[in-house]
Formats: sequence, structure tokens, C-alpha cells
Amino acid sequence: MNYKIENTKKIIINKPLKLDCGQTIEDFPIAYETYGKLNEKKNNAILIFHALTGDQFVTGNNPITNKDGWWATAVGSGKAIDTDKYFIICANVLGGCMGSFGPKSINEKKKEPYGLSFPVITIRDMVRAQDALLEHLEIDKLLSVFGGSMGGMQLLQFCALYPEKTFSAVPIASTASHNAQQIALNELARQAIMSDPLWNKGNYYQNNKIPKNGLAVARMAAHITYMSDKGLQEKFGRKLQEKKDYEFTFDADFQIESYLRHQGKVFVERFDANSYLYISRAMDYFDLSKQFKSGLSEAFQNHKTKFLIVSFSSDWLYPTKNSKEIVIALNASGVNVAFAEIKTDRGHDSFLLDEPEFLKTIKGFLDTNFEIFKNEK
Amino acid sequence: MNYKIENTKKIIINKPLKLDCGQTIEDFPIAYETYGKLNEKKNNAILIFHALTGDQFVTGNNPITNKDGWWATAVGSGKAIDTDKYFIICANVLGGCMGSFGPKSINEKKKEPYGLSFPVITIRDMVRAQDALLEHLEIDKLLSVFGGSMGGMQLLQFCALYPEKTFSAVPIASTASHNAQQIALNELARQAIMSDPLWNKGNYYQNNKIPKNGLAVARMAAHITYMSDKGLQEKFGRKLQEKKDYEFTFDADFQIESYLRHQGKVFVERFDANSYLYISRAMDYFDLSKQFKSGLSEAFQNHKTKFLIVSFSSDWLYPTKNSKEIVIALNASGVNVAFAEIKTDRGHDSFLLDEPEFLKTIKGFLDTNFEIFKNEK
Repeated sequence: MNYKIENTKKIIINKPLKLDCGQTIEDFPIAYETYGKLNEKKNNAILIFHALTGDQFVTGNNPITNKDGWWATAVGSGKAIDTDKYFIICANVLGGCMGSFGPKSINEKKKEPYGLSFPVITIRDMVRAQDALLEHLEIDKLLSVFGGSMGGMQLLQFCALYPEKTFSAVPIASTASHNAQQIALNELARQAIMSDPLWNKGNYYQNNKIPKNGLAVARMAAHITYMSDKGLQEKFGRKLQEKKDYEFTFDADFQIESYLRHQGKVFVERFDANSYLYISRAMDYFDLSKQFKSGLSEAFQNHKTKFLIVSFSSDWLYPTKNSKEIVIALNASGVNVAFAEIKTDRGHDSFLLDEPEFLKTIKGFLDTNFEIFKNEK
Repeated sequence: MNYKIENTKKIIINKPLKLDCGQTIEDFPIAYETYGKLNEKKNNAILIFHALTGDQFVTGNNPITNKDGWWATAVGSGKAIDTDKYFIICANVLGGCMGSFGPKSINEKKKEPYGLSFPVITIRDMVRAQDALLEHLEIDKLLSVFGGSMGGMQLLQFCALYPEKTFSAVPIASTASHNAQQIALNELARQAIMSDPLWNKGNYYQNNKIPKNGLAVARMAAHITYMSDKGLQEKFGRKLQEKKDYEFTFDADFQIESYLRHQGKVFVERFDANSYLYISRAMDYFDLSKQFKSGLSEAFQNHKTKFLIVSFSSDWLYPTKNSKEIVIALNASGVNVAFAEIKTDRGHDSFLLDEPEFLKTIKGFLDTNFEIFKNEK
């Protein structure tokens, strides 16, 4: 990666954090961004949890990629999550590579990056670090939490840990636990990275020979899972890349090949290979029901948080059935829950795209809950 | 690969074969196996086309892997495709690595393996080479042709090229054309291989430092697509690999991780990385409708071949809709076609497994057609 993380807010968490692996960390940085303005009553704050390869730059310009923030479709002035109305917080996850404490952070004792000596973290560890950020920002109760994909896992974990800390919650295209196929796909990505000789057991920062090839393959694999069969077919089909017929080589003849290669190439410029390992591992370890004796419904017992669960019909990575399992558990706990499956061909990535029905749904839920929450706080 | 191809039949095709890429090859070997006995009337011959990583060792002991042949569930004495009754032929495809002419064959002019100087081949090239084998075996009309996955592509191409050469045909879990997702998955595998520095632009035979890592990742990716979400969950779920709890490392904690790593490891012992590139490329290039002005139905116009199309309900790599497209085209051509979707959770791999309903279906179709064909020939 040839970028510098300068233009981002950062706090140092001083309170020791005992990780699920047993180690304790302290005095570690969490990078974050905020958008909009916290009102006087502090009842308009929203915490957004980002996905595997996301970051704190939700909207506006991402200073690293110089592109729009990852959720500019949903968050901004006049958008579904309106920055003129709400105060939005997003933190780079623990283990990340955008300024938060992660494997590329410098171990001050050894004066070198942690690499694989960084502790293996969990979704719960990520969430606890973000709770410390909320304390720092002196926000005791959020209007809402949002999270798609791995963001939804953090959201569920946050609600389970701190039932009093948010009025409402919107997990999107997510799951309460990775199944075998989801673990398999992450393991494939990890193997692609760890098979690259330049990965060098995680020690690649000093010589700047990063495992680009492996990380690009990991990204390509993931990217295929973010789109649906039908969506890919509509967008690319068998269209050739600026040629009239097959060239009988192993160059990119098809547009889809060229597209995938491009996705791999741009990704390695912005993301750290070790972070990919750590974050994907946290996703695989996540199993909310495991934390409660009588399973998932116990995670939300007697909770007052109002939930909206959203899935996308063509999402095969986190299919609707994963969302329905959450709905069933919430219902079993007597929690107030709404559920929407958005019909679309654009697969898992739909939550990042301009999907009008989806954006209208989350806007309606959020605005309604703000009206109710305002009367309480 | 540390094996030797000795115990297999082989013919040298003397007749020049003009490939789709424009090059002409001649005096090249095709390795094959036969099972059972050709009867006097020569009306009991069946040609089986193998899939991407298959070979000519359909049943009995595979001398390379020392395991059962890849279709021992279906082919053998007393089995659905009964070797006591039928004469079964299977050839290693052109571009393969089990004795047929492929990238690891020696270029006699240069006294070194072809590597990437081997011509890029197509499914049609593979089929034409196998037709030459049939000529050599002096079989003018087959009782039937079978092929699963890429085998089904060869089968469709064979029927389109030589409508008079088979009485019946059974394409299984296949397609008449790769769509964008199918190309993407193959491209992912190719990128995994080509990203491995040991691949060395295809020149890795001499120094015996083969691109094992890349090929293993390619295999893992493919393997995930061969199983269904539900099948993986039933077999592995979140079960841990000989441990009671997470170990907070990047070793294989979950059984599915260990399983995938094993699949990658054993595969690289038997398969050539360049063959993977060439064969997967042929699959992506395959688009039967492209060969005919008015599309797929023209491929079978006025054909007398009796078809049975089989798909598996949980196969997401070559889903039922791919098979239905073939059925629709055959119907539009007025061809005799039966269609069966087998209900199973075992995904694309089902065609290789002991699936009683599937095996019963193909046995019934084959035996019935043998009775009819016997009266004709």
C-alpha cells in the first residue's frame, strides 16, 4: 500500500481491553470519522459498522482512494441517512488498516509492525473497541446502528452486549453465524494470501514487497460472491473485451475477466493483506448463539431495541435465510422486529448500491424511530 | 506431479487436426481406456466424456491416484452403466495431462515441454480428437454418449458435429455455454495459478518446481463450487478440527478449512497447472449457439439422437436452468428429449456420487435405448 493515513480522526483507547483470545491491549488507536452534527439532546447519533474491506470513510471523499465513501449512496445530505439531520459515526475496525490498531501498526517495543504477532481478534473485540469510542464521544444512547455484511455481525454483537445503548438497529445482508460455505470462502481468500511467497508469514512491511498477487486473487474470489449469477450475466454476459473474437491466449478475452483483474489490482493498493486475514478470521469465529446457553434468542431477551432486518433476494453470500434466522430469534425474544427482503438481481453488493426500495425502507424506519426517540430523550 | 503415465492405452492420431485457433496438429497421442467388451454387432459401445479434472480412468483402479476411477459409482459390473453388458470408452481430453497431447507433452523439435507454446484448444477440438479415436476403434455408431459438467459440453458438441454417430445421449449437470459467473470462477482459478511465481509463464517442468500453491488455491475455489451451501453445512457446519475451542491462530480450526486444504494438497499431486489453464479456457470459449446462425436449436435440427438431460436441484455451478435451456432448444428442434432434475443437497458433485435416483434414471434410459438400438443395428 502506498498511502498515508493522515486525514482521519483518531483516539487512543487508554482503558485496557481484554480480548477474547485472552490477551489484553491498551493505549491503542481507533480511527473514525463523523458526519453531520450531534444535536443538544444527543438523540440523533447513529453508529455505522463497516464490512470486511470497508473503512471509516462512509461518505464524501475517501482521502485514501480519492473516490466516494463506501456508503455514499445511503449517507449524505438529503440521503436516506441524512447528514443534515443525523450525526453519523463510523470507526475503522480493530484489526483494520485505515488507522485503527491492526497488524500493520508498529509494535513500539520492537520498533516494527506487529504482523502475525498481532492478536487474533473477534467481532466482539471490534465492538468493545467501538463502545470505547462512544464513551469518548460521550454518547450514552444511539438513535440507531446500521451495518451490512460483517457490519451486521458487529451490530448484532453490539445489541447483545449493550441492549440499552441503541434505540433501533438495522442489520443488512448479514448473519448471526458463519456457516460452512461462508467459512470456506474466507479460508479460500486466506489461502490465496498465505500461499503468496511475498506474504512471508506476515512479515512483508519492511521490504515493501507486499503479497499483491495473493491478495488480488482473494479479492477476485470475494468479488464473485458479492454479485449474483443473474447480475453478472446482465452486466457482462459473454461480452468480449475490445476485440471481435477469441484471441486464443490467456489474456483477458472476456469483459468479466478484465473486470475481475481490475478489481484485484485496485484493491491491493488500499488494503493490507494481514488485515484481510485477521478480519476474515473474526467473521468466521463469529457465532452469536454460542455466547448464550439457550441460543440466539437469548441474545436479545427482553430487549427494547427496535429492529429492521434487511436482506436481498439475489444475495447468495448472506442469503435471506440467514436474515430470517435473526428474525425468528428476535421474534422468539419478543423483540419489536420488522423484516424486508428487497427484490434485486444485484446480489450481496446491493446494500452498497443505489437500490431505491432499499433506501426508502431504511429511511422510513430511521425517520419514524427518530420521531419516537425524540419524545423519550 | 510425481507420477508416470504408463498403464494406459494410447493411440497416435496421424490425421492432421485443424484446431479452432487456426493451428494444425498431427501425430499426437490420445490416451484412453476401455471397459467391458465390444459385441459383434458393435451396438453396445458408449463414449464417456470426462470433466475438467477428470481422466480416462472411469472405473476400477486409477493407476495414478491408486484410488477408484472417478465414476466407479455409475460404471462397473452390475452398475447403472454395466460393464458386463456395455463397452465403455473414455479418452483423456486434448490439453489434458494423463497421456493425451497437452502442454506438458514434449515438443520433439525443441526437446522440451510445450508449456504455453501449446495451442489454445476448444471443446470442439477435444471432440474431434475423440472422434478420431472412434475411427481407430472402428466404431461408426455409439449406443450412447455420457458426460457430466465439461463432459456434457463435449457431448453436446459431439452430437452437433456428428448427429449420426450416437443413438442416444445423456448430458448431466452441464451447459451449452458458460455464463459470466462460470467464466469468472474459471478466471479466478487461472489467476490463482498464473499468480504463483513458480508458474513462471508456464515453464516449470524442467526444474520440477511446480506452482503447487496456486494450483491448490484454484482447486479449493473450484471445490467450493462443487458442493451446495446446504451440503457443506450438513457435512461440516461449524465443527472444529480435533480441538475443543478456537485456537486464535490461522491454522485450520474448522473442519471445512482442513478439508479444503487437503483437497488442494492431493490435487496438485495428480494434475498439471498448465492443463488446468488450457482446459478451463476451452470451457469458457464453449458457446454452442455461436456455431449456428439461428442459435442453439439449429445445433440439433432434424437429429434422431434420443436425449436424456439430467440436472441436480442443489447444483449452483451448472444449475437446472442451464439444463432447461438445452431441453428448450432440443424441443424446438423436434428432438426426442427427456429431462430429469434429481432432488439432492449434494450440489454439482452429485453426478459423481452414489445418488440412487440419478443412477436408476440413467440405467433405465440406457437399457431401454439398448433394446431399441439392438433392433436397428
